[in-house]
Amino acid sequence: MEETQIDLTIDEIRSALESGNVIDAIAALIRLHPADRAEAFSDLKDTEQASILPGLDVPTTADLLEELEDPEAADVAEGLARERLADVLDKMEPDEAADVLGDISPQLAAEVLAEMEDAEEVLPLLEHADETAGGLMTTSFIALQPNTTTIEAIEYLRGLSPDEETPYYLNIVDQEGRLVGIVGLRELVIADPHTRIETIMDKDVLHVTTDTDQEDAARLMVRYDLAALPVVTEKGVLSGVITYDDLMDVLEAEATEDIYRLANVPDSGLSVESPIRLSVKLRLPWLLLSAATAFFASWVISRFESIIAQVALLAVFQSVVSGLGGNSATQSLAITVRAIALGEIQLRNSWRTILKEAFTGLLQGTAVGLVAGFGVYLWKGNPTLGFILGLALLGNIFIAGIVGTTIPLVFKALNMDPALASSVLVTTVTDSAGFALFLGLATYFLPYLK
Amino acid sequence: MEETQIDLTIDEIRSALESGNVIDAIAALIRLHPADRAEAFSDLKDTEQASILPGLDVPTTADLLEELEDPEAADVAEGLARERLADVLDKMEPDEAADVLGDISPQLAAEVLAEMEDAEEVLPLLEHADETAGGLMTTSFIALQPNTTTIEAIEYLRGLSPDEETPYYLNIVDQEGRLVGIVGLRELVIADPHTRIETIMDKDVLHVTTDTDQEDAARLMVRYDLAALPVVTEKGVLSGVITYDDLMDVLEAEATEDIYRLANVPDSGLSVESPIRLSVKLRLPWLLLSAATAFFASWVISRFESIIAQVALLAVFQSVVSGLGGNSATQSLAITVRAIALGEIQLRNSWRTILKEAFTGLLQGTAVGLVAGFGVYLWKGNPTLGFILGLALLGNIFIAGIVGTTIPLVFKALNMDPALASSVLVTTVTDSAGFALFLGLATYFLPYLK
Repeated sequence: MEETQIDLTIDEIRSALESGNVIDAIAALIRLHPADRAEAFSDLKDTEQASILPGLDVPTTADLLEELEDPEAADVAEGLARERLADVLDKMEPDEAADVLGDISPQLAAEVLAEMEDAEEVLPLLEHADETAGGLMTTSFIALQPNTTTIEAIEYLRGLSPDEETPYYLNIVDQEGRLVGIVGLRELVIADPHTRIETIMDKDVLHVTTDTDQEDAARLMVRYDLAALPVVTEKGVLSGVITYDDLMDVLEAEATEDIYRLANVPDSGLSVESPIRLSVKLRLPWLLLSAATAFFASWVISRFESIIAQVALLAVFQSVVSGLGGNSATQSLAITVRAIALGEIQLRNSWRTILKEAFTGLLQGTAVGLVAGFGVYLWKGNPTLGFILGLALLGNIFIAGIVGTTIPLVFKALNMDPALASSVLVTTVTDSAGFALFLGLATYFLPYLK
Repeated sequence: MEETQIDLTIDEIRSALESGNVIDAIAALIRLHPADRAEAFSDLKDTEQASILPGLDVPTTADLLEELEDPEAADVAEGLARERLADVLDKMEPDEAADVLGDISPQLAAEVLAEMEDAEEVLPLLEHADETAGGLMTTSFIALQPNTTTIEAIEYLRGLSPDEETPYYLNIVDQEGRLVGIVGLRELVIADPHTRIETIMDKDVLHVTTDTDQEDAARLMVRYDLAALPVVTEKGVLSGVITYDDLMDVLEAEATEDIYRLANVPDSGLSVESPIRLSVKLRLPWLLLSAATAFFASWVISRFESIIAQVALLAVFQSVVSGLGGNSATQSLAITVRAIALGEIQLRNSWRTILKEAFTGLLQGTAVGLVAGFGVYLWKGNPTLGFILGLALLGNIFIAGIVGTTIPLVFKALNMDPALASSVLVTTVTDSAGFALFLGLATYFLPYLK
């Protein structure tokens, strides 16, 4: 539904711009929801964007920068005049403004920060690494003292400027700014107006520190169904809040990262929109790494070259063994990597998973080995060939179950991303083991093969 | 942090149960947060669970069933007495209760529904398919008339029973129950007490219908940062609400589904916890399908058996061409499938993505072909072998870029899941094309190879 509307709007903007009518173009763009507006804007050509941008007011430009993807937001920001960019960043949510400042040139960022009015809200966010709770949180939160009454709290909320986002959770801090409790807007609404907040607040507040990994923070929010998660310094001083909308973005990004890494796409920033040059630059090294491992498998085969020269039929079926080992290992790998990501597996219990997948591999290997071995016997009429193919498949699919679980678990134990490099390593093992098993068995049974 | 606490609690429960002290075991369990409680409970043995379960009160059992994974919740539910189960389900969120009822035996479900007091809240949910907005929504929502004043609304909220979850959004419906607006608790709090809700409500409410796919509903909530999404019937009558905590579960589940399907694990319900029998039953068919496609590739090789008999060295390198084609196609596939899932790609624009990936393939193929071809020349001292390996790699990686994008897009156009079967199909193409290219070129250049 919204897709068609965006397309229609893009057409409308284009025809308005072609007839030189920038105001109509802007009017068409503004009619969209901010999220759709960003999509339409980013579909426009650079020159079209450049004609529209100066005509947008500061709050609209701020909305636009918040909704655009990070690299594109930085491009647009760099195209704005310095003072205007400062005004726009002042209007943005501090965490989004910090993201933009982190993506533009450091010199421009410094100049713009000097111009900004709310620089003090953004500055602390710039210190934190991108993938930490500190990098994800917003500093625009409400903190009240424990002795505030509920009616005072509500009056305070009423006094906030209307364009400020009123959060659904109020943080309660002591004199030193340390987090001591949290109160939901609903508890506030249904409480007696003169109750002190300390009597209705939840004192057992789940929180993380600024350097917590963003994925761990997200996992905590999902686990405990939290709409907001306070972030504190090492001393317990409240320094920001992660809200559910940032959480959703993290969940999406982490899922993309896992999918990509399992497919040997190393950077989750890549998408169908990425320029070809960037795509090749990031993907090629992994392909070359795969080439190196493929050559290792070739070296394994080359040990058996004289056998293949005698029975060329072996070359026809060797890839069945390596390929199915790879397929089976990929199944185990996907299940293990996902379980690690979702926190369903602990290192302490991991031997159970390895045993289970090894046994699954044994069963799958037996089944596939029987079917494929019998199939080859029927096709080529060579019972020995069928036997060694079946046996090699059984062995390799059993190995696949073990390496497909062990390798990501070892990565995890070493505090590395389990999805990273796992699939290259796992298939290197199943390729080499597959060729070695099949061709090794062939060497052993050579007299019966010819 | 919470992991250790869970482990300690499990130890505590076990030693209490061993000394026959069920009350202490229950006390230890209840000290945990409900989400952790479910994890500890599901780590206990069946006999241990059975000793604890009768000692839990109805609300605690309800919490437990809400937090357990669906199949385990159904097991626990089936172990409860019928009347007790009815009480427990009455205490649960209607959508969670409906999930349990859908997972237990139909006869037991019917009997329990007859015993339940709030059956009318759950019944409508049972009609909807699991993966639709209707299957995901809860029917426990608050609907007010447009002429209510804000103070009346707040009084109404105060009157709700305290264990009822007060939502952050109030739905506004007309006399016929049709959704006409929505008001956030924050707008309610900061408005003048005697304002009519219709003057502060947001009339332009984003909503879905009960039969909307849950992934589309989730995508809408992520796109527009919604904490709650109303679900209406075809006639516009409000029938439920999807809340952000259900959304998070959908996002996780959909990511798991994509990761699994790309790895040829057909059922996203599988996990490291699944029984081996189920695992084999679901995974084996896909492995056998892969075996069938591997045999197709073998058939391609078998066409060149006489060439391999003359130059056994070809068998050493043929898998490099097929394997790298597969790796490159997997990269394109992951990026395309993810872009489709995140709505970043429209069918209308898809030719652009295909062209881009084809060109990326051409560049990557040239690079990999040069490196690998030169490498083989150095290793084996055979320039013709290096040349045909390089050329075959170039061709196959180019093909990989095209099929890795085209196949999922065709699946999408046919309204099938783009991740499903794509990787089997794609690697079938790159395997067969790889062998055919390399061995075909070898046949052509045979005089120079020997």
